[in-house]
Amino acid sequence: MISSDVSDIAADLAANATLLEIAENVGLSPLLDRGTPFTLAEATTATGVPEDRAALLLRAMSAAGLLERDAETGPFTPCAELADRRYEAGYLSWSLSANRPYIDHAERFLREPDAAGRQHQRDGRRVAVSSRWIGSRGFYPGVLSEIISRKPRHIVDLGSGAGALLIRLLTELPTSTGVALDLSAGACEEAERAGRHAQVDDRLTVVNRSVETLVDDPAPLDGADIIHAGFVMHDVAQHPEVFAGVLRACREHLADGGCLVVTDAVPYVDRPGERAFSALFSYLHESSMDVRLPTEDRWCEHFRQAGFSEVTSTALGMPGSRLFVATR
Amino acid sequence: MISSDVSDIAADLAANATLLEIAENVGLSPLLDRGTPFTLAEATTATGVPEDRAALLLRAMSAAGLLERDAETGPFTPCAELADRRYEAGYLSWSLSANRPYIDHAERFLREPDAAGRQHQRDGRRVAVSSRWIGSRGFYPGVLSEIISRKPRHIVDLGSGAGALLIRLLTELPTSTGVALDLSAGACEEAERAGRHAQVDDRLTVVNRSVETLVDDPAPLDGADIIHAGFVMHDVAQHPEVFAGVLRACREHLADGGCLVVTDAVPYVDRPGERAFSALFSYLHESSMDVRLPTEDRWCEHFRQAGFSEVTSTALGMPGSRLFVATR
Repeated sequence: MISSDVSDIAADLAANATLLEIAENVGLSPLLDRGTPFTLAEATTATGVPEDRAALLLRAMSAAGLLERDAETGPFTPCAELADRRYEAGYLSWSLSANRPYIDHAERFLREPDAAGRQHQRDGRRVAVSSRWIGSRGFYPGVLSEIISRKPRHIVDLGSGAGALLIRLLTELPTSTGVALDLSAGACEEAERAGRHAQVDDRLTVVNRSVETLVDDPAPLDGADIIHAGFVMHDVAQHPEVFAGVLRACREHLADGGCLVVTDAVPYVDRPGERAFSALFSYLHESSMDVRLPTEDRWCEHFRQAGFSEVTSTALGMPGSRLFVATR
Repeated sequence: MISSDVSDIAADLAANATLLEIAENVGLSPLLDRGTPFTLAEATTATGVPEDRAALLLRAMSAAGLLERDAETGPFTPCAELADRRYEAGYLSWSLSANRPYIDHAERFLREPDAAGRQHQRDGRRVAVSSRWIGSRGFYPGVLSEIISRKPRHIVDLGSGAGALLIRLLTELPTSTGVALDLSAGACEEAERAGRHAQVDDRLTVVNRSVETLVDDPAPLDGADIIHAGFVMHDVAQHPEVFAGVLRACREHLADGGCLVVTDAVPYVDRPGERAFSALFSYLHESSMDVRLPTEDRWCEHFRQAGFSEVTSTALGMPGSRLFVATR
């Protein structure tokens, strides 16, 4: 339930999210995430802008409380709650920045959704960054602990994007191997690069393909102990036969005792604290992305119909999100 | 101070602000503000989109709690807290929507502020709407009560925009007259229209000019009991001699006992609950609009140097905002 002092912190949240977006856009995020204090000189190098101008931004972030500085000339330390502020900013940035075309052209998306969809596309980077910020608390922790607790030897991540989740898993599970599959060639290149950077590239295979192609060529799924799919299956589910084929292929190619882990969303969750964001998420998908989210029951039914023996559903931190585990 | 449950309501705030922006963009705001329940048919007419598509948006707004509906087919009633939700949304929309060019091109605004400023301008409508939403609780109530309590017979509003504040004042003070002065021809046309709509056009004069021109031709100020200037003087203040000239003209043309009421901002207020938004507001003005906000003391000094005898400063609801009253 929204409390009466929400108005007081709306300004805080808005300002912090905007400053964090600006910091991201000028290239300051790596320094913020490094975990050690950084100097004005380092910020100047990272952003590539003149030192007195970089200083303006650091001053604003310090005044806002996102950075701390011991002395007038000392290094800058990200505040202890920076991860919380990022997580909160994720909701604002996803809603108001990543979905900007759907807001600005809302009337057109209601009137002519197909034409509007062809003409006004979201910025992939904004979607990826804001989703990552939400995920940092909203779903990654739950997914990671679920998967790591099962100690899989081989993991396949469908719709893996830039590979962040799988690389994190391979780092935590130092003898496991993984396949990252994504439709976007750019995201796959980033995943290759990130894999080398994290020194897991000898255990990581990147496959540039759509999830739907697994119906005809399921080879990338072979021998997986865990197949994970994060926020990609609701797109596949718009075509029930293709979705059934993908799920059957997943089941057939999982190793014995393996499971399919699907992180995704259900529509219009009615609980306080979930209802507003879940409503926006559901509305934008149906009005502007031509996606009708399956209900929780419908998700479970899809998994059972594909032959999975046991299916569980758990709420994650992001309003409306669910972690489905379907055991072979 | 940001409390630990801020994360929980960030999603609520983001979703409500986005839905309210969408509602504004499809033309639903007048129905939301009408104060009486409205039907799906009315919403369909107001938005001009097909009924089943308008229904999608009303369903989402109902699910989010912004609208209430007694029965499956009954009319929609805006929630009792809609004014609060609008106010909160104002901070998010001003920060992340109205300032979008400054965020997206943040690096360029730091590197080449002049060129960036010429190339990337804010959308005037987004600025006006989000400022109005913030103002609804953030500064209008304080300004209105300050001015109304003085029962001015003649009011001049500098930088009056679409005239909302002055028209509200003329409605509350049924024998008073007013002059609305603004640089924007479009805003002046809107003020004329709004004056007719509110039936105060016989007491309202609209002048399409910049505040700076008052130095050479102060006629619009003649005989004012109150001269008000909302968030326009910080621009004028960038040129100290012009600002001094404008303030002197105001003082000279005020009626006996009259006063200048300036609603504006001070930079980098350090108080909890103000620091983050004040930092963003200050940063965007200095980095992207070439405006250095005067400090509270400096504002007061400007008024005194122009000959005003008594100057007071009061904090308003919007972080960093102040109501200055300078008596002739």
